Amino acid sequence: MLKLYYNAGSIALASHIALEESGADYEAIKLNHAIMEHTKPEYLAINPKGRVPSLITDRGILTETPAILLYIAQEYGASVFPPPEDPYDLAQLQSVNSYLCSTVHVNHAHRMRGKRWVDEQNTAAIEAIASKVKSNMEDCFHLIEEEMFIGPWIMGADFSIADPYLFTITQWMEGDSVDPADFPKLLAHRKAMLARPAVARVVAEHAA
Amino acid sequence: MLKLYYNAGSIALASHIALEESGADYEAIKLNHAIMEHTKPEYLAINPKGRVPSLITDRGILTETPAILLYIAQEYGASVFPPPEDPYDLAQLQSVNSYLCSTVHVNHAHRMRGKRWVDEQNTAAIEAIASKVKSNMEDCFHLIEEEMFIGPWIMGADFSIADPYLFTITQWMEGDSVDPADFPKLLAHRKAMLARPAVARVVAEHAA
Repeated sequence: MLKLYYNAGSIALASHIALEESGADYEAIKLNHAIMEHTKPEYLAINPKGRVPSLITDRGILTETPAILLYIAQEYGASVFPPPEDPYDLAQLQSVNSYLCSTVHVNHAHRMRGKRWVDEQNTAAIEAIASKVKSNMEDCFHLIEEEMFIGPWIMGADFSIADPYLFTITQWMEGDSVDPADFPKLLAHRKAMLARPAVARVVAEHAA
Repeated sequence: MLKLYYNAGSIALASHIALEESGADYEAIKLNHAIMEHTKPEYLAINPKGRVPSLITDRGILTETPAILLYIAQEYGASVFPPPEDPYDLAQLQSVNSYLCSTVHVNHAHRMRGKRWVDEQNTAAIEAIASKVKSNMEDCFHLIEEEMFIGPWIMGADFSIADPYLFTITQWMEGDSVDPADFPKLLAHRKAMLARPAVARVVAEHAA
């Protein structure tokens, strides 16, 4: 059986939703963020990066959200979000997921994880970094809203693995001081996602 | 015919090498970095992110290195780096490429692009950010060398689209004050890449 390791409120929500949507047989294991369990030796033996999510399969361990989502789509997603067979369509899907991981998620991380990129004693620099997160995230959401989002799902008519990924990141808007009302398509997307029973179940589990 | 837009010395080198290795019919268009051509309206009409690479296909425009590499592999790479048909193997390949784009490339960008993440007037913070790049890149290269690199290519016996991507980033070692001699597998990989005629041609074109 698949096992997904996650922290509540983290980017692992995307993979967790994808698993629940797919109907795959899996177990979700919540790490204890209060004791930074994802940095302990037991977890580092699973994922030496010390990050979530990690997906344990009968073949081995997968990390990195775009890769885990693609695996879930290919192995378990035929009925809900089949991966595009056409190489160009698949590349466009992977392009969206690459942008979410390498630009949008990274910009968000600068609010609470600034010490990844400066000396952890340099509180002035850490605060300076955090102070730019709002405008950077607004820039990203404007690009998604105005250039990338097709509707009703991000890639168009078909629900895809990019939808739980986008949804997870839009859940961070308020924490990043971004007003969802400025992004009507993304706000409607968030509501459409929350109306899906699988999404509601997983969101409730992360909030518990 | 495919068209690839690139800046010399940028991450676009990976896609450029992949095109040259694949034998695809393409044209590479070097942007003028001295005038920041990638930020001008003509280019923003191609890629509103204002980044390179962009790949113009007869279907539309692709951006984001992991997506472009996967597209090249699927459409043109059968003889040189066929994409894995097995979903788990494909996910492991995409996991490596996701790590390179979202962590390694991002850490590197903090040396010269710190103003993406702080107010551009805040020179103290920008310097503080740049000063951590060496140790962050060393951490990444240690993880790749010790946990991810199988050899002789990064994914093992078979050359893959992750190899030009890794090679491009290891080209930045000296600029980031990382000593290649500390990473013997990556140093051997760099030499093996440079021994490939397609790689040598594209590297020479970027250096011209």
